[in-house]
Amino acid sequence: MTAQDAYKNLISHFKENTTLASVNSVLEWDQDTYMPSAGVDHRSEQMSLIGRMVHERDTDPRINDWLAACESSEIVKDPISVEAVNVREWRRMYDLETKLPSELVEEIIRTTTKARQVWMEARKKSDFAMFAPWLEKNVELNLRKADALGYTDDRYDALLDAFEPHAKTAEVVKVFEGLRKDLVPLVAKLKDAPRRPDIGVIKRPYDVKKQAIFAEMVSQRIGYDFNAGRLDITTHPFCAGLGPDDTRICTRWYPEDLAEGLTGTTHETGHALYDMGLPREHYGTPMGDAISSGIHESQSRMWENQVGRSRGFWEYFFPVARGVFHNEMADITLDDMYAAMNYVTPSYIRVEADEATYNLHIMLRFELEVALVHGELKAKDIAGEWNKRFKEYLGIEVDKDSNGCLQDVHWSAGYMGYFPTYALGNLYAAQFYAAANKAIPDLQEQFARGDFAAMLDWLRKNIHSQGKRYRATELVEKVTGRPLSHQPLIDYLYAKYEPIYGITR
Amino acid sequence: MTAQDAYKNLISHFKENTTLASVNSVLEWDQDTYMPSAGVDHRSEQMSLIGRMVHERDTDPRINDWLAACESSEIVKDPISVEAVNVREWRRMYDLETKLPSELVEEIIRTTTKARQVWMEARKKSDFAMFAPWLEKNVELNLRKADALGYTDDRYDALLDAFEPHAKTAEVVKVFEGLRKDLVPLVAKLKDAPRRPDIGVIKRPYDVKKQAIFAEMVSQRIGYDFNAGRLDITTHPFCAGLGPDDTRICTRWYPEDLAEGLTGTTHETGHALYDMGLPREHYGTPMGDAISSGIHESQSRMWENQVGRSRGFWEYFFPVARGVFHNEMADITLDDMYAAMNYVTPSYIRVEADEATYNLHIMLRFELEVALVHGELKAKDIAGEWNKRFKEYLGIEVDKDSNGCLQDVHWSAGYMGYFPTYALGNLYAAQFYAAANKAIPDLQEQFARGDFAAMLDWLRKNIHSQGKRYRATELVEKVTGRPLSHQPLIDYLYAKYEPIYGITR
Repeated sequence: MTAQDAYKNLISHFKENTTLASVNSVLEWDQDTYMPSAGVDHRSEQMSLIGRMVHERDTDPRINDWLAACESSEIVKDPISVEAVNVREWRRMYDLETKLPSELVEEIIRTTTKARQVWMEARKKSDFAMFAPWLEKNVELNLRKADALGYTDDRYDALLDAFEPHAKTAEVVKVFEGLRKDLVPLVAKLKDAPRRPDIGVIKRPYDVKKQAIFAEMVSQRIGYDFNAGRLDITTHPFCAGLGPDDTRICTRWYPEDLAEGLTGTTHETGHALYDMGLPREHYGTPMGDAISSGIHESQSRMWENQVGRSRGFWEYFFPVARGVFHNEMADITLDDMYAAMNYVTPSYIRVEADEATYNLHIMLRFELEVALVHGELKAKDIAGEWNKRFKEYLGIEVDKDSNGCLQDVHWSAGYMGYFPTYALGNLYAAQFYAAANKAIPDLQEQFARGDFAAMLDWLRKNIHSQGKRYRATELVEKVTGRPLSHQPLIDYLYAKYEPIYGITR
Repeated sequence: MTAQDAYKNLISHFKENTTLASVNSVLEWDQDTYMPSAGVDHRSEQMSLIGRMVHERDTDPRINDWLAACESSEIVKDPISVEAVNVREWRRMYDLETKLPSELVEEIIRTTTKARQVWMEARKKSDFAMFAPWLEKNVELNLRKADALGYTDDRYDALLDAFEPHAKTAEVVKVFEGLRKDLVPLVAKLKDAPRRPDIGVIKRPYDVKKQAIFAEMVSQRIGYDFNAGRLDITTHPFCAGLGPDDTRICTRWYPEDLAEGLTGTTHETGHALYDMGLPREHYGTPMGDAISSGIHESQSRMWENQVGRSRGFWEYFFPVARGVFHNEMADITLDDMYAAMNYVTPSYIRVEADEATYNLHIMLRFELEVALVHGELKAKDIAGEWNKRFKEYLGIEVDKDSNGCLQDVHWSAGYMGYFPTYALGNLYAAQFYAAANKAIPDLQEQFARGDFAAMLDWLRKNIHSQGKRYRATELVEKVTGRPLSHQPLIDYLYAKYEPIYGITR
């Protein structure tokens, strides 16, 4: 078989497989939005059937032959050509999918199904001891998974790599340590700042129907295409790609909080803008796919925070919001709103945390995960260690395990290696945004005029259109001119918070 | 292989296949409700991929071996046992699916795709001559299809059988002739009746949101389970089975018409109640599936007409409706509403036709189809023949082809044999309803108290729970004690219309 023929086979095989996998996205979206409650059992049968079919096709042994034919050919000579990138990433995926023994996969599913039930019960009772044995089992399974996947330097690398390809634990540790050193004092300063925003301007009754209308206006204005997507209501906000021209977002509305629904929308719009900007002609191949969880999160966080909580954004949208919420906002000024959107306060629950404290939540989890994987910490000691570090980083005492180490689903579901991608996303976002500001110095003035096109074009050109051409760290360096650093995020936070809170660096 | 093992293989093969096919129902439902417009191309790729997979599995040659092992065994001794029914129906399906040569299937798809485009254009221009050559092609393809499927008495049988299994053209012709003879004079009498309902009580502004609330109340009250379904908005009302516990209905609302949205809801609720009443334990096998298009239509028409346009129904729901539409209905009495819900008038468009004239529309189409298939009529002469019969049956002159033979999509889509199932559904419904009234003499009093449980239980026991155990005509005879006849429908219509219109038989 010629390399050309092998490559053609790979293209058509994976395009069809992507189409099949996208069917599961439809099933999942429907489950999280409109499916009637009794439909859940059959839905899980539909999804596991499709999932099994996708897995069978993803591990088809012919893939190995086709890849081998390409890998030894001229096709991959230029390492960043479309063909070379696709072959590289297919190889990576094929190896990952074929390395895990099916017994291990099944054991993980069995164990996490039970672990999740125990976790829900334990969280309800706020009783970590109840969950500890299951956390231990999940750690052990993750160790076996890491060993099956393989690693060179660090066992945690294997787990991290599944979500953030090619990321190295040692590098993440280094960047996070720098970030923590600067972030802990900033959070402390903000806590005792001379001025603090009045969160009451956001936390008051806001008509829910108007919230939805306003959020759709915002989403459309910043670039979301409602002909190729829609906004629905769900429990946990998400963005789903149901096809190359069908990227849907979901959020939820609180009748006494303007920010939750709105930032849920700008966040998911950010994810969607990435998917909508991937090169259409490469759909179904790695060149048409997103780089990593971290880079994806950088896009959602940038639109949510760097754009959606910026002064320029609110200069444009405040009068619009006043028109929509004429009763609710009668007594509120632009300054009030801008400050309240940037309200910072240490709190227990990660998903409710603000832009500044959020990363401390992530770092804490990451450090504990690494210690568990390295065998430096026992599962049973997690609660104590959690509470100790929480006090250190955020300055508050954890009152109960359900507000502490039992709050997140990830460990019960067996996910280890995922948490750091949240903070990486924030770091990437700040660094990208700094570079965008250098390239387009009047970005905030543009936002203030309601013009977000240059921002989006810059992201499209530098990030979205690249598909998986570069690794995440390569992309960061290529786009921003320097390696990943925590500095841009810290600079950005101080620049924003100094005037609002009256603090100094 | 033992017959037991073969049967087990068939069960698991077809259960999985049904699950796979149900995925396409989700895709289709989404396409008709919430899918953004740009998603259409990828959606059709998803659906054709799943469709291809289902077809491959439905025609897996192992099925033939498994069936053969069962067919020669004790398993099928009792012809109405679960096993015998399943084997009989799987055989029927397997033979049907394997008989059509794939070249013919592809030619049908190619031709109908074009024919449909031409039809849309021709309908817009109201120019039958433009469409005639494509109708001719479609007739020819249907003849080839009939020949491939095979028949003993009548070529049209093969086409009819695909939608109404085991139905015979000669029998349908006979029943329809009797029906026509009685229906034409009834429609004429109603047209010139001494009293006629004031349709204005229905055709006036009705708040659309309230219409949806009222229709949901009705649907729930007559037995629809909103935990296992939902009601959404679409262009053409439909009912979709997304899984054994997920049966969704869709309708549309007109701001100046109360009846369209409501009867769309009761009609689709009828379809859904059938699906919801199929034996859950047999899901994925013929014993858990509906008998035929005609029997399915009988359930929708019964709830829409025999129940939903009855005096008892409105005795209960009129005060409820008055509560919901307190402004809209301030000047309307129960008698006004009941009469208006039974407004009859000859009209051009089938889908807008009332309960009495509807069947004449169907018969006309059926007679022309049969004549085309028998070669007694040429495609080019359809418009003339249509108009002639339309005047004869409905007493009005067709003013243009778009109001005549160009109105329906079926012929352009290549469907022949489907139309008669609509009228069969009406005949079955009337005959079932007469039997139900004999079994439960106070049905109308029960409806007047808002109690629809006995009606639904009767349908569940006699029809829904039987799955495909009996053929349609067998079921009718078993449940009603006599063969299919047009008499119950005529009796029912006279009983209803005499007091409303002041006519006599």
